[in-house]
Amino acid sequence: MLFGKACIFGGRARYCVVKPSACLFTTSSNMAKSKFEYVRNFETDDTCLRNCYIVVRLDGRNFHKFTEQHKFAKPNDNRALGLMSRSARSVMEELEDIVIAYGQSDEFSFVFKRTSTWFKRRASKLMTHVASQFSSSYVFYWKEFFGEDLPLLYPPSFDGRVVLYPSNRNLKDYLSWRQADCHVNNLYNTVFWTLVQKGGLTTAQAEERLKGTLAADKNEILFSEFNINYNTEPAVLKKGTTLIWEKRDETVTKCMKLPNAEEKEVAVTRSRRRVQAHHCDVIGEQFWEEHPDILEDDNC
Amino acid sequence: MLFGKACIFGGRARYCVVKPSACLFTTSSNMAKSKFEYVRNFETDDTCLRNCYIVVRLDGRNFHKFTEQHKFAKPNDNRALGLMSRSARSVMEELEDIVIAYGQSDEFSFVFKRTSTWFKRRASKLMTHVASQFSSSYVFYWKEFFGEDLPLLYPPSFDGRVVLYPSNRNLKDYLSWRQADCHVNNLYNTVFWTLVQKGGLTTAQAEERLKGTLAADKNEILFSEFNINYNTEPAVLKKGTTLIWEKRDETVTKCMKLPNAEEKEVAVTRSRRRVQAHHCDVIGEQFWEEHPDILEDDNC
Amino acid sequence: MLFGKACIFGGRARYCVVKPSACLFTTSSNMAKSKFEYVRNFETDDTCLRNCYIVVRLDGRNFHKFTEQHKFAKPNDNRALGLMSRSARSVMEELEDIVIAYGQSDEFSFVFKRTSTWFKRRASKLMTHVASQFSSSYVFYWKEFFGEDLPLLYPPSFDGRVVLYPSNRNLKDYLSWRQADCHVNNLYNTVFWTLVQKGGLTTAQAEERLKGTLAADKNEILFSEFNINYNTEPAVLKKGTTLIWEKRDETVTKCMKLPNAEEKEVAVTRSRRRVQAHHCDVIGEQFWEEHPDILEDDNC
Amino acid sequence: MLFGKACIFGGRARYCVVKPSACLFTTSSNMAKSKFEYVRNFETDDTCLRNCYIVVRLDGRNFHKFTEQHKFAKPNDNRALGLMSRSARSVMEELEDIVIAYGQSDEFSFVFKRTSTWFKRRASKLMTHVASQFSSSYVFYWKEFFGEDLPLLYPPSFDGRVVLYPSNRNLKDYLSWRQADCHVNNLYNTVFWTLVQKGGLTTAQAEERLKGTLAADKNEILFSEFNINYNTEPAVLKKGTTLIWEKRDETVTKCMKLPNAEEKEVAVTRSRRRVQAHHCDVIGEQFWEEHPDILEDDNC
Repeated sequence: MLFGKACIFGGRARYCVVKPSACLFTTSSNMAKSKFEYVRNFETDDTCLRNCYIVVRLDGRNFHKFTEQHKFAKPNDNRALGLMSRSARSVMEELEDIVIAYGQSDEFSFVFKRTSTWFKRRASKLMTHVASQFSSSYVFYWKEFFGEDLPLLYPPSFDGRVVLYPSNRNLKDYLSWRQADCHVNNLYNTVFWTLVQKGGLTTAQAEERLKGTLAADKNEILFSEFNINYNTEPAVLKKGTTLIWEKRDETVTKCMKLPNAEEKEVAVTRSRRRVQAHHCDVIGEQFWEEHPDILEDDNC
Repeated sequence: MLFGKACIFGGRARYCVVKPSACLFTTSSNMAKSKFEYVRNFETDDTCLRNCYIVVRLDGRNFHKFTEQHKFAKPNDNRALGLMSRSARSVMEELEDIVIAYGQSDEFSFVFKRTSTWFKRRASKLMTHVASQFSSSYVFYWKEFFGEDLPLLYPPSFDGRVVLYPSNRNLKDYLSWRQADCHVNNLYNTVFWTLVQKGGLTTAQAEERLKGTLAADKNEILFSEFNINYNTEPAVLKKGTTLIWEKRDETVTKCMKLPNAEEKEVAVTRSRRRVQAHHCDVIGEQFWEEHPDILEDDNC
Repeated sequence: MLFGKACIFGGRARYCVVKPSACLFTTSSNMAKSKFEYVRNFETDDTCLRNCYIVVRLDGRNFHKFTEQHKFAKPNDNRALGLMSRSARSVMEELEDIVIAYGQSDEFSFVFKRTSTWFKRRASKLMTHVASQFSSSYVFYWKEFFGEDLPLLYPPSFDGRVVLYPSNRNLKDYLSWRQADCHVNNLYNTVFWTLVQKGGLTTAQAEERLKGTLAADKNEILFSEFNINYNTEPAVLKKGTTLIWEKRDETVTKCMKLPNAEEKEVAVTRSRRRVQAHHCDVIGEQFWEEHPDILEDDNC
Repeated sequence: MLFGKACIFGGRARYCVVKPSACLFTTSSNMAKSKFEYVRNFETDDTCLRNCYIVVRLDGRNFHKFTEQHKFAKPNDNRALGLMSRSARSVMEELEDIVIAYGQSDEFSFVFKRTSTWFKRRASKLMTHVASQFSSSYVFYWKEFFGEDLPLLYPPSFDGRVVLYPSNRNLKDYLSWRQADCHVNNLYNTVFWTLVQKGGLTTAQAEERLKGTLAADKNEILFSEFNINYNTEPAVLKKGTTLIWEKRDETVTKCMKLPNAEEKEVAVTRSRRRVQAHHCDVIGEQFWEEHPDILEDDNC
């Protein structure tokens, strides 16, 4: 390879000649680079189909082990859920065009509006950017939720994927699917860990006890054996976390100069968009009727 | 939506009836979930073509602003380069099948072996995982390189892409392209910042001065005006950082129990794979001849 | 290669030994095949995103030359347009799930319904099948339109592509785009060839005359110079051809056996789906209101 | 829709006003077209990865029924095989960059050279073009092989797919896979139809008889019961058909004008590329050693 050898030659040349003349090797670096640039053409286009919602979902990698090593509370660790939401908010604030995000357990889904042209709708850019911002935020904000006593032992990892949804119905069904998953898992985990922690069963016994039970049976166990009404459990656990943008009026006091050079304090009210967390049902229509601006019309 | 309403009804029902019978709504949660599960079919397969090297390249997002805000040294900040390499090593150690990684400035490329079946070769999984592990590591190890005095102000972000290379020649040319880019940029930046920092030029004047100059001219400016021999600059700056796996013999002292129940200290030598950093030329053939195990045969 | 050599050996063996025993080579053919079967894994999945209309558009390849060599009438050859529609009908009748097709000049677009699962929605299968059926039909039905006097000189070719449209609006706009293209081209060609054929201009002069003219100018030339009212030109030329499925009652006389073994002729009316051609406007809403069954609801 | 209505209005206007002024509607046709042109952006890029062989394989659709209806000879119809090869030759002659094609039964594979840039390597264009040219040729040349007595009853159809192979080894293994498939199927079919046609078995009995037999058993049945040596069967059946480009010297007589205005007949020898058919083994290395120009070097 010309470029490599030339560099070595250049290095040696300097030791013998005091003032090097413009030698060939130095002009060749840009030439060498252009010679290799054909490799750029191996990149393929992964533009997302227009007029579809782009969903990026992240999932914690090896989080079973991670939660063990960091002694997360069972079945739910509020600090961990708070950190997930905080990291998701960081993603929404840094990346454009995310209109709604939904998270539960160690997963979070981010929905880009269907008309987004962010990063030219390139799937790879969208998903790596979400994964990166979420992961760096997770480490950055760890201490805010776990304090000094429970240090992060190693950098965790999340993997992601991109899925496209052509209609509002499809997108709502996607979010409903994740929330139904949250419900099913949380009910199971709540009963399972109650049987272990309060009922004195081993994990194997609890698993055996729950085999084949329906949701009604699980509610019944909680209610009759432990006097727990599952429906009064915190909504954040039963429904997960939905993040959306909301406009809020903010009033700040500003110091203004008057024409006569005097200064005066004035209250200025501005409308600001902020990421707001909800723990409500997104399967029914009520949520969507209350927030008509999240989705765009199908007929566009 | 049945599921949403049922939950609310269930919640109310509990207050009036002391012992709820197994009501319909509770059996419907799994049904509700399965009703939405069709949305999984919208995921598309993004398996990487077999028998090709899979390259994931990460680039810092808005790093110009990031380096300004964190007062990185110009033209190169050794702490920042060290942190990049440390994060890349973390990626190699956590993810399987990366045989070589190359980094310079705020970018890093990771090469999966051509026969890798990791994550079923799914492009989205590979690239988000690399982006995530790198980003969380960057925040996690920040303090190790920047100490307590220069805290990280906010979580940074990296975007990524996947490119496939079918032959050894293509892959070597890809790495050569990145190293040639490193050379061209570093030479420019070295002269530029020398003109500013030692020559007293403004950045605009330095830019003007360098307009149209060849590599030879830049070497000449450094040598004749500032007595700097570019070829003796640190290799890490001129050549970037190449990470590969290397086998090292490690000798540890182990405590062994003898048959007579006595204990004895023994030296045990084991061969261990470790990620090793190089700052050498990868454009010429020498590097590849010295490390014949990195690439697999084309004829496979 | 074992398989190849074994075959040769097997061939020779037969000449010396009268009754060959079960030799190794013969058992190895299935083994040989299975050894190569890994190459199947290089096929990639190209499933079309669900809930989107799948449009396959065909375009004649080198049709300028083709029309010259077959002496097509200018600006439009009714036989050629008839053959295009006949071939398109053949495609609709042979392939499932095409709900509408639109053609003009040497192109034809076929729209698969958004919920189609034909060929598992694999793009390659859908487009090659359309291209193949259309092309074989074009040759097969040639004589029906051009008679014995104008034989087909060589097999023509059409290339194709697949495009997905997520909403009814997008699909209608696609068809409107093709029909607007038909209008623009046909108006131009009509004036151009009138200037040449009736006005005695050379093709170069006609081109020059039309440079920069608007649609109104072209209408004006036709009307004032040649007494041609473009609006009374045949709809097939101005609007192209739209093919849809329509239900028609068909009454056929059937011979039925009565219980007493006598036979009797009965008129049986059945509803049958047939491909029907229209030459109407598809840009406005009227066509879609008159045929509400073509499109499926967006909210599915 | 403005465009549609405007046209109708224009039509009416002509009846009342003798000389229409340049009305609005006529200027709007190009505007209308441009309004819809956004739909072009829904097309996605399907460029094939560089430096890989591009294989397009066609398969007859519903050919079981097709062969029955056209009374093809069993187990092989030489006219049908000839027509397949003729159509494949037509594809090679019309399309650029196909270096080798292999066919057997009702399938044919076409291999584009790895450095081909034909149609910008767009998969959809390559495969539809191959499918189209093959299908129109199949109908066009039908009479040449089946004569007037056996007319084609309806236009047949072939579907296609694209597969990429990064190395020479992969490509050779692909062709070996197809040839091994040819061998396995042809041996089976030969014995099966011999048992039926000469042995008097029903098709069900023949199927039963062959259940679980190895290649050796099948050879044995042919040899001991019917005195047929499978190895002396025609190569076209056992090995399929391989089409490659070959240079041949062609001598033609040309009429040349001499300086003295006289004319003279001269023999001119030119080297011309022609598609040549082979029925030889492509699994072993011999074929590739004899035709070193078909494949390009892996190290490119």
